[in-house]
Amino acid sequence: MLTYHFRDKKEGSLYLQLYAFMKEDILAGRLTADYRLPSRRAFAKNLGISIVTVETAYEKLMAEGYIYSLPKRGYYVSRIDRSGVLRQIPQKAREKLAVSDLAGEEKAKIRFDFVNNAVLPGLFPFTAWARTMRGVISEQSRELVERSPGGGIWSLRKALSAHLLEFRGMEVDPGQIIVGAGTEYLYILLLQLLGRERLYAVEDPGYDKIAKIYRAGGVAVCHLPLDDKGISVRALEEREADIVHISPSHHFPTGIVMPVSRRYELLSWACARDGRYIIEDDYDSELRMDGKPVPTLRSMDPADKVIYINTFTKTLAPTIRIAYMVLPARLAERFYEDLGFYSCTVSNFQQYTLARFIETGSFGNHINRMRRYYKKVRDSLLRQIQSSEAFASCRIMEEDAGLHFLLKTGSPLTDQALKAKALALGIRISCLSDYYQDPETAPGGILLVNYSGIDPEQIEEAVRTLGLVLI
Amino acid sequence: MLTYHFRDKKEGSLYLQLYAFMKEDILAGRLTADYRLPSRRAFAKNLGISIVTVETAYEKLMAEGYIYSLPKRGYYVSRIDRSGVLRQIPQKAREKLAVSDLAGEEKAKIRFDFVNNAVLPGLFPFTAWARTMRGVISEQSRELVERSPGGGIWSLRKALSAHLLEFRGMEVDPGQIIVGAGTEYLYILLLQLLGRERLYAVEDPGYDKIAKIYRAGGVAVCHLPLDDKGISVRALEEREADIVHISPSHHFPTGIVMPVSRRYELLSWACARDGRYIIEDDYDSELRMDGKPVPTLRSMDPADKVIYINTFTKTLAPTIRIAYMVLPARLAERFYEDLGFYSCTVSNFQQYTLARFIETGSFGNHINRMRRYYKKVRDSLLRQIQSSEAFASCRIMEEDAGLHFLLKTGSPLTDQALKAKALALGIRISCLSDYYQDPETAPGGILLVNYSGIDPEQIEEAVRTLGLVLI
Repeated sequence: MLTYHFRDKKEGSLYLQLYAFMKEDILAGRLTADYRLPSRRAFAKNLGISIVTVETAYEKLMAEGYIYSLPKRGYYVSRIDRSGVLRQIPQKAREKLAVSDLAGEEKAKIRFDFVNNAVLPGLFPFTAWARTMRGVISEQSRELVERSPGGGIWSLRKALSAHLLEFRGMEVDPGQIIVGAGTEYLYILLLQLLGRERLYAVEDPGYDKIAKIYRAGGVAVCHLPLDDKGISVRALEEREADIVHISPSHHFPTGIVMPVSRRYELLSWACARDGRYIIEDDYDSELRMDGKPVPTLRSMDPADKVIYINTFTKTLAPTIRIAYMVLPARLAERFYEDLGFYSCTVSNFQQYTLARFIETGSFGNHINRMRRYYKKVRDSLLRQIQSSEAFASCRIMEEDAGLHFLLKTGSPLTDQALKAKALALGIRISCLSDYYQDPETAPGGILLVNYSGIDPEQIEEAVRTLGLVLI
Repeated sequence: MLTYHFRDKKEGSLYLQLYAFMKEDILAGRLTADYRLPSRRAFAKNLGISIVTVETAYEKLMAEGYIYSLPKRGYYVSRIDRSGVLRQIPQKAREKLAVSDLAGEEKAKIRFDFVNNAVLPGLFPFTAWARTMRGVISEQSRELVERSPGGGIWSLRKALSAHLLEFRGMEVDPGQIIVGAGTEYLYILLLQLLGRERLYAVEDPGYDKIAKIYRAGGVAVCHLPLDDKGISVRALEEREADIVHISPSHHFPTGIVMPVSRRYELLSWACARDGRYIIEDDYDSELRMDGKPVPTLRSMDPADKVIYINTFTKTLAPTIRIAYMVLPARLAERFYEDLGFYSCTVSNFQQYTLARFIETGSFGNHINRMRRYYKKVRDSLLRQIQSSEAFASCRIMEEDAGLHFLLKTGSPLTDQALKAKALALGIRISCLSDYYQDPETAPGGILLVNYSGIDPEQIEEAVRTLGLVLI
C-alpha cells in the first residue's frame, strides 16, 4: 500500500502534507491514471493517521481534479496529460514592466512643467467633494450598491442636463446623455455605435491620442489639415470621410475658435449624406475666460448630426475619470438597443457624488473660482512675458480660451533644440509642431504654454527661466 | 444706416440685444456676406448708445464668427451658408430614451430576486470604506490629482499582487497587473491586445455578456459546449479557436470546477501554437465556501499562456467598477508598447482607497465576513429547501462554490412556464436553459438560485413561496 512519511506538523497539517505528497506523485506520473487508491479506512490505518485526515486530503484532491471517485467503488487517479505543457517562460523584462511607474529622476529635474495637464492639488475642491461624498454615503447607501443604468444614474444625467442648459445654453434630454469613465472610453463606445467600416477624420495638428484610440478600436482614420477657421470641409469631402472629430469651441493646440460660417459648412456637409456625424469635443469650454462662451455646434444643429462630448478633466481633475456624451436621439435609441448591455464604467460612488456636487451648486461655484484663478495666472504670465526684454520679439496668440496659449518665439533654434534647451533649464514645454502628423510641415518656433500646472508663486521665476531659453 | 429698436433693458443688456438683432439678420440673409458694417462710432451715434456697447456686441459677433474685421478697414459680415442644413429632426422616442431608468413598477412586484447580482446595502463595508477614503483625502491629496499610469497606480498594483499571493497563492509582478473600470472594459483592452483577426471561444452555457462584448469589439466568437469537466478541448481544436475565455474555478452557471486533468489538456492546447491564449475569469473564487480554494489555472501555467482576470463585483459590489487582469510577461510588454497611451479608467480616489483598503487588511477581513455571511445564507436556504415537502423531488447541485447553486426541480412545466409562475408569486429567478445559446438543447427544469441579493430574514418566506412554484 502507498506509504508516506510525514514531516513535523510545524511544516503543515497532516492532511495538507498527504495532499502534497499524492499530488506530486500524480503529477510526476508515479501514480498513474485510473490507479485505485486505498480506501480511507485502510489508508488511515497504514499511515497511522485519522480517517478524517485522509478524507480531507482526498476531498481536496478531488475538488482539484487530481483524483475521482466512483460510487461504492472507491477513489481513482485522474488522467492528467502534462506532456504538451512546455517550459517556455519568456525572459521577463522587469524594467519594461515597470515603465509606467513614475520615472522619478526625470521628473525631479523639471521645475516648471508647461505640458502637464494635471491640476494643482490646492485647486481640487477636496473639502466640498469630501463633504458631498459623506452625504452620499450616509443618505444614499442603498442606491450606492444598486446597479446603475448603462448610460449612468438618472440623477447625474439630470444634473448634467441642467448644467448644460446653464453653462452652454443647450437643451438636452437626460436620456440622450451617456456617462463613461473618461472621453477615451466614450470614443470606444462611439466607434462601436457608428460602425467600424466608416472613415474617421481628425484634426491635424491635433490631440494625437484621439486618432490612436480610433485606430486601436479598429477603424480607419485620416488626418485633415486646418485653415484659420478650423478643419477644411473640402478636405473632408475629398477624403470621403464619414465621421469628423473636432473641438470647435477651442481647438487644441492652435486655439482656433471655429467661426459660425465654417460651422454651418460643416453641418451642411453632415446633412448631405446619411451616416455622416460630427463629434464635438468640448473639453475646456467652461473655462473660457473672456467674453461669453461660444455656443456649441450642437446647439446650432437642427438635424441631429452632432455628438457632443465633454469631460471633468479640466474643470475638476483628469484623475476623476468622468466624461459624458450627448447623443442625437436616433443614436441614443440605437445605443440602448445595441450597446445597452454595457455596464456604466463609473462607480456609483463617483456618479452620486458628482450629481450632488452639481445639484447643490458646488460645481458651478468651483468653475467660477477656477475661471478667476486661471485668468489671474494667465494675466500674470502675460504681464511678465510682455514686460520682459527676453520676449521682445515674441508674439502671444490665442490667449482667450482655456488654459493654454501659443508663444511665437521667432527663435532661430529648431523646435528640438528649443525643447532641449528648455529641459536643460528645468522647463518642460512642447512646440506646436509636436502636434502635427508631419512636424516638417509645421510652423517652427511656436511654443505651447499650458499653464494649468504652474504654481502662481513661481510664475516670475518660470518666465525668467523661459526667457533664458529664447536668448 | 442699420437701425434697431431696443426693448426695455429688463429684456437684456443693450449689447446683447444688438448682438441678437444682428445675428438674426445675418442668419436670415438680410445682412449679406461681406456687407460692410457701420463703424463703431457712427453706429453708436445712430442708435443713441455708447461706443463701448457697439464694441462689445461686435466682439461677441466676431468671436462667434458672424462678422470679421479687416485692419484699418472695418467690420464685415461673414459668409455663412446654411442652405445645406436640413430640418430633419427625427421623432424623439422619449420613452425609449428613458428605458434604462428604473422600471419602477416591474421592480415593485418582485419580492424575492434570485437573479440580481447586487449586494445588499448592509453588506458593503461602508464604515471602513468611508474611513479609508477620508484617510486618502487627508493624507494623499497630492497623489489624487497626479496622473495614474495606464495600468493603475503602483500602490494598488502592489496591494493586488500581495492579495493574489495570500488568497490565490499566485506570484505576480505588479507590472503585469492592469487595473480597469470593470471586466467589460478589460475585455475590450484584451481584444485590442490579442488582435481582432483571432477567433474567440466562449463557454455554452455561459455568461452571455462576454460574447456580446467581444462581438461589439469586432471579433468573431464561437460558443463551445461543456462536458462535466468544463469546456471541450476537442471542440476548441475542431473550431480552430485561438483564444478561449473560461471560468475554471467556478463556471457560471453550471458551477463546474474544472479538474486538473482538463486544465493540463487546456494548457497543452494553448502551448501547441503561438498566439493561443486562455483567459481565466476568476470572478468569485474568493467566496468559495467549502474546502481550500482551487488553485488558479495561471498558477499551473509554466508557459505564460494564461491571462488572469478578477473583479471586486462579488467581493465588494458591482457598482464599485474595479477589475484587474494579470498579463503574461510578453503581453504586458506589448500592452505598454501598443496600448500604453490609454488612461486608466478608474479614478485615483477609488484606486488609492482600494489600495489602502487591501493594505490595511480591511479587505481580507471583509472577505472573511462575506464568506461566513454567505455560508450562513446558503446553509439556511439549503436547510429550508431540504426540510420542505414541496422540494421532495428536487436535487441541489454545485452548492460549494460562491453565491449560487442549481436546483433540479423535476417539474413538468416548461422553463418559461416555471419562470412565469414564479414571477406571478413575486419571485424573479432564471433557469439553466437561459444561459444556453440554444435553450432547446438545454436540460429543462433546472433553476439557478443566486442568493447574493436575498435578505436573510426573508429566507423562510422565500423558500415557502418558491415551493409554491413547484407544486
